[in-house]
Amino acid sequence: MSKGLTSRNEDYSQWYNELVTKADLAEHSAVRGCMVIKPYGYSIWENMQSFLDKRFKETGHSNAYFPLFIPKSFFSKEASHVEGFATECAVVTHYRLKNDGNGNIIVDEDAKLEEELIVRPTSETIIWNTYRGWIQSYRDLPILVNQWANVVRWEMRTRLFLRTAEFLWQEGHTAHATSQEAMEETERMLEVYADFAENVMAVPVIRGKKTETERFAGALDTLCIEALMQDGKALQAGTSHFLGQNFAKAFDVKFTNREGKLDYVWATSWGVSTRLIGMLIMAHSDDSGLILPPKLAPIQVVIVPIYRSDEELEKISSVANEIVLSLKARNISVKFDNRDTQRPGFKFAEYELKGVPVRLAIGGRDLENGTIEIARRDTKEKQNISRENLAEYIEKLLEEIQISIYNRALNFRDSNIRQVNSYEEFKSVLDEKGGFILAHWDGTAETEKRIKEETKATIRCIPLDNPLEDGACMVTGKPSVQRVLFARAY
Amino acid sequence: MSKGLTSRNEDYSQWYNELVTKADLAEHSAVRGCMVIKPYGYSIWENMQSFLDKRFKETGHSNAYFPLFIPKSFFSKEASHVEGFATECAVVTHYRLKNDGNGNIIVDEDAKLEEELIVRPTSETIIWNTYRGWIQSYRDLPILVNQWANVVRWEMRTRLFLRTAEFLWQEGHTAHATSQEAMEETERMLEVYADFAENVMAVPVIRGKKTETERFAGALDTLCIEALMQDGKALQAGTSHFLGQNFAKAFDVKFTNREGKLDYVWATSWGVSTRLIGMLIMAHSDDSGLILPPKLAPIQVVIVPIYRSDEELEKISSVANEIVLSLKARNISVKFDNRDTQRPGFKFAEYELKGVPVRLAIGGRDLENGTIEIARRDTKEKQNISRENLAEYIEKLLEEIQISIYNRALNFRDSNIRQVNSYEEFKSVLDEKGGFILAHWDGTAETEKRIKEETKATIRCIPLDNPLEDGACMVTGKPSVQRVLFARAY
Repeated sequence: MSKGLTSRNEDYSQWYNELVTKADLAEHSAVRGCMVIKPYGYSIWENMQSFLDKRFKETGHSNAYFPLFIPKSFFSKEASHVEGFATECAVVTHYRLKNDGNGNIIVDEDAKLEEELIVRPTSETIIWNTYRGWIQSYRDLPILVNQWANVVRWEMRTRLFLRTAEFLWQEGHTAHATSQEAMEETERMLEVYADFAENVMAVPVIRGKKTETERFAGALDTLCIEALMQDGKALQAGTSHFLGQNFAKAFDVKFTNREGKLDYVWATSWGVSTRLIGMLIMAHSDDSGLILPPKLAPIQVVIVPIYRSDEELEKISSVANEIVLSLKARNISVKFDNRDTQRPGFKFAEYELKGVPVRLAIGGRDLENGTIEIARRDTKEKQNISRENLAEYIEKLLEEIQISIYNRALNFRDSNIRQVNSYEEFKSVLDEKGGFILAHWDGTAETEKRIKEETKATIRCIPLDNPLEDGACMVTGKPSVQRVLFARAY
Repeated sequence: MSKGLTSRNEDYSQWYNELVTKADLAEHSAVRGCMVIKPYGYSIWENMQSFLDKRFKETGHSNAYFPLFIPKSFFSKEASHVEGFATECAVVTHYRLKNDGNGNIIVDEDAKLEEELIVRPTSETIIWNTYRGWIQSYRDLPILVNQWANVVRWEMRTRLFLRTAEFLWQEGHTAHATSQEAMEETERMLEVYADFAENVMAVPVIRGKKTETERFAGALDTLCIEALMQDGKALQAGTSHFLGQNFAKAFDVKFTNREGKLDYVWATSWGVSTRLIGMLIMAHSDDSGLILPPKLAPIQVVIVPIYRSDEELEKISSVANEIVLSLKARNISVKFDNRDTQRPGFKFAEYELKGVPVRLAIGGRDLENGTIEIARRDTKEKQNISRENLAEYIEKLLEEIQISIYNRALNFRDSNIRQVNSYEEFKSVLDEKGGFILAHWDGTAETEKRIKEETKATIRCIPLDNPLEDGACMVTGKPSVQRVLFARAY
C-alpha cells in the first residue's frame, strides 16, 4: 500500500475509483469496458450469491442455464424490448479466424453467420422461446427459474461495478397461469431483494414502482428498490418486472387453463447484479477504506500479532491459534496474519482499507494480562478486554456492527429525504444538498423528460406505500394526487 | 412420460440423446450448438460445483472473474495456442444494431470494432495479460486463482453435454516462482479431479500424461484422467496443464526471484466442464433411465404414497412427513410426491428415469404393519422393512449405493483393459470389444497419426504409474519401452 485514499469530500468519484482498486476488489481489463473482479471482490460477490440463492430456493425457484447468444431476429419480436437493448449490444458475426499467410490472424470471411448472434444483454427472448416447448397446460405452471450468468451491454462510459460492458448477475424468469399470480411473484421477489439489501447489505431501501419512462423494455410494471449513497445520489439496487403477456405473445407461448381454454402465459423477470458491490462501497465506506457489513465480509475478524522476538511470536501464535479455532467453531471467518514481512502498522492500515469488521491485536503485555485489543472498523473504537469468552463476545459484536452500520445508513438516508413544493426549491435542494426529493408531478412523460434534461434528476420511483395527497405539479402546476421520489442517480 | 427409452444395445447414441431430454437434463436451443441446461440437470451441476469448489478452496485457491472477451491480438501471442483455438471461435465485430427504416433490425456498420473480440474458448491469454500487473516479486507468488465461467468453441457436430458450442466449466490459472512448484500444482489438481471422479461421481479413472499431439495448445505437459463409458469408448474427464513459461513469455510476465534476478513466471491451468454430466450418464445409467450416485443426486430419496382414499392418504402423509423430517435432519435430500394427478406406477417410472437412488413406497398395509417398501435404483432390489430406525438405515444404504455404483463401473473398466501385441489384434479388439487397449508404440507423432486415421483410436494417455517393459511398436516394429493406453474416445 502506497499513500492513502483521496478523501470523499475532496473528490467522491476519485475516492471510489481508488478504493475499488486499492482494496483489491476489481480493475479495468485490456478489453474496453470489461472488468476483472479480483479474488477479494469476488469473494464478496460469492457471499452475496450465497444469501440470494438460498432465498430464491426457499421461495421455490430452481436454477437453470440458457444460451449466451441470442439470434438477432428474437430481439425484434418484442417491439419495446429491441428498442431498449439494440443500441448497446455485442454482435457475433463470424465463427472462425484464419492465418492470412503472412502470420497475421484475421477473421475468416468464409465463416460468416447467416444470422448474427447477440451476446445476451438480458435473456427474456431466448428463455420465452424455450418456454414455448415447456408449457402446454396449467399443470406445467408456474415455472420458477433463475439463472446466474454474465451479460453484456455496450456502455460507452464505464465505471468499475457501477457500469461495465460485461457484468455478472442473476435473472429470474417465471411463468404463471394468471395475472394475479405473476403480480404476486413480482412483489415477492422485490421483497426478497429489499430484505437482502437491508438485512444483509445493511443498506435501507425505498420500495417503489417505476414510471412508464423508466420501466424495463417490455414490462407492464417495474418494481424497484432505491438506495441513497453518501454523496446524495440514488442507486437502483434491484428490479422486479411484471411482464404481463408481452413475451408470451411475442413467442407464442399459450397454455390450456383450468377451464380448458387457450390463453397466453403471464410472466415476470427480476435481477440484481455485481453493481450491488458498488452500492455496498458507496453506502458505508469512509476515507480509510471499505466498511463491510459482517454478513458479507470475506474476513470477519483478523488477528495481528505484535512481537519483539521469535519467542514472543511463538507464544502469541499459540494464543491466536486457539482464538482462531474458537471463532471457526462459531462459523466466524477469521485470519491470523503472522506474516513477518510487514509491520503491524502496515497490517492495520491494510485491513482498514479492506473493511475487515473486527481487528484483534495481541502483544507481550496482553500475554501476561490475559487481554487482547479489539478494534471495530465501523466506529474505529478500540478497547482492551479480557480474553475470557472472547468468541461469544465477538459473535455479539459482529451482530451489533451489522445493525449499527445499517442504522447509520438509515439515519443518513432519512435525513436526506426532503419535500419541496416548487421547481426552484427542487433545483436548489438538488444542487446544494442532493438526496431524495419528494415532489408533486403531473404524471406526464413530457414533464418527467423536461425535469431530467434541466436538472439531471429522474423519478426514482413512486413509493409503494405512498400517501395520497392533493397537490400541484411543481413544474406545470397541473393537479397531482401524490408526491413522487426524485434524485440524481448512478 | 411417453414410451420408454431406446435400449443401449439397440442404439447407444440414441439411448443417450433420449435420456438427456426425457430425464429433463438438457435440450437443444434455438442457437445452433448451444444447449439449455434444465433445472434438474443444472442441480446436478450445482452439486458438482459445490464439491469441486470446496476442494479448490481447501487447496488454497480463490475464485475470481475475467472478461468474456479476448482481443484478437492476444491469441496470436502464443503460437501454438492460436493454432489450437482460432479455427473454432465466436468473433464479435460490432457493438450496435439499428433499425433500417423498414422495421428491420440490422447490424450498424458505423459501430464496427477496431479490433475484433473473441468470445473466450479458454482464458490463458487474458489472464496472463492481467497477471503482468499483479506480479513483481516472488512475494506476489504463488497466485492460485480459479474461475467458474462459460466458454465458447464453435463445434460443428454437437451433442448435449459432450460437445456443445457453449459450455460451463471452471478453469484454474496459477502462477509460480519455480518450475517444480508449478509441476506440483499440476499434479495436485489432477489428483483433486481424480478423487472427485472416483469418490463423488463414482467413476474410476486412469491418471496419465498426454502425448505431444494430444497436449493442450500452449502446454509443455498435459496430465489427464480418462474414464471408460459403457459402450467401450473413453472419455477425457479432466485435464491439468503444466504451461512452463510459455504464457509468461508471450505476455512478458517477469518477477524478481529470491536471488534478486528477473525471471519469467511458471504457470499451470486446469479445468473440468459440464461434459462431466455426459460422463456421469454414460458411466452408470441403464435402459430404464439415469442412475445417479447419491452424492450428486438432486433428490436422494423419494416417497410415493399408495392409497385408495383421501383418508388413507392423510394417514400416509403424516407418516411420510415424519420420515421427511428425520431424513432432512441427516442432510438427506428427500421429496414426498403426494401429487394426486399421477398414479404410483407413473411416479415409479419417472423417478427411475431421473435416477433417484432410493424410492420409498407406503400403502395401507404398511401403515398397519409399521413397514415400508424400499427400492434401490442401482440394483432395482426391493424389500419391505420396518420403519424403525429408517433414517439411519437409509443413510447407510446411500453410502452403500455410492460404493456399489463405483465398484460396478470399476469392474466393467477393469475387464475392458486389454493388452495386444499386434496391429491386427489391436484393430479386431477395437472393433469387436472396444475398451482400453495397452499396446507398444514407437513414440512418434507419425505413427500416432496413422493409427488415428486408420482406426479412429487415439492415445488416451501414458499412464502415470506405467510399468516399463521392452517391446516393439505394434505398427512399425520399432523399439518401445512401455505400453500406452489407446481407445476410441468421445
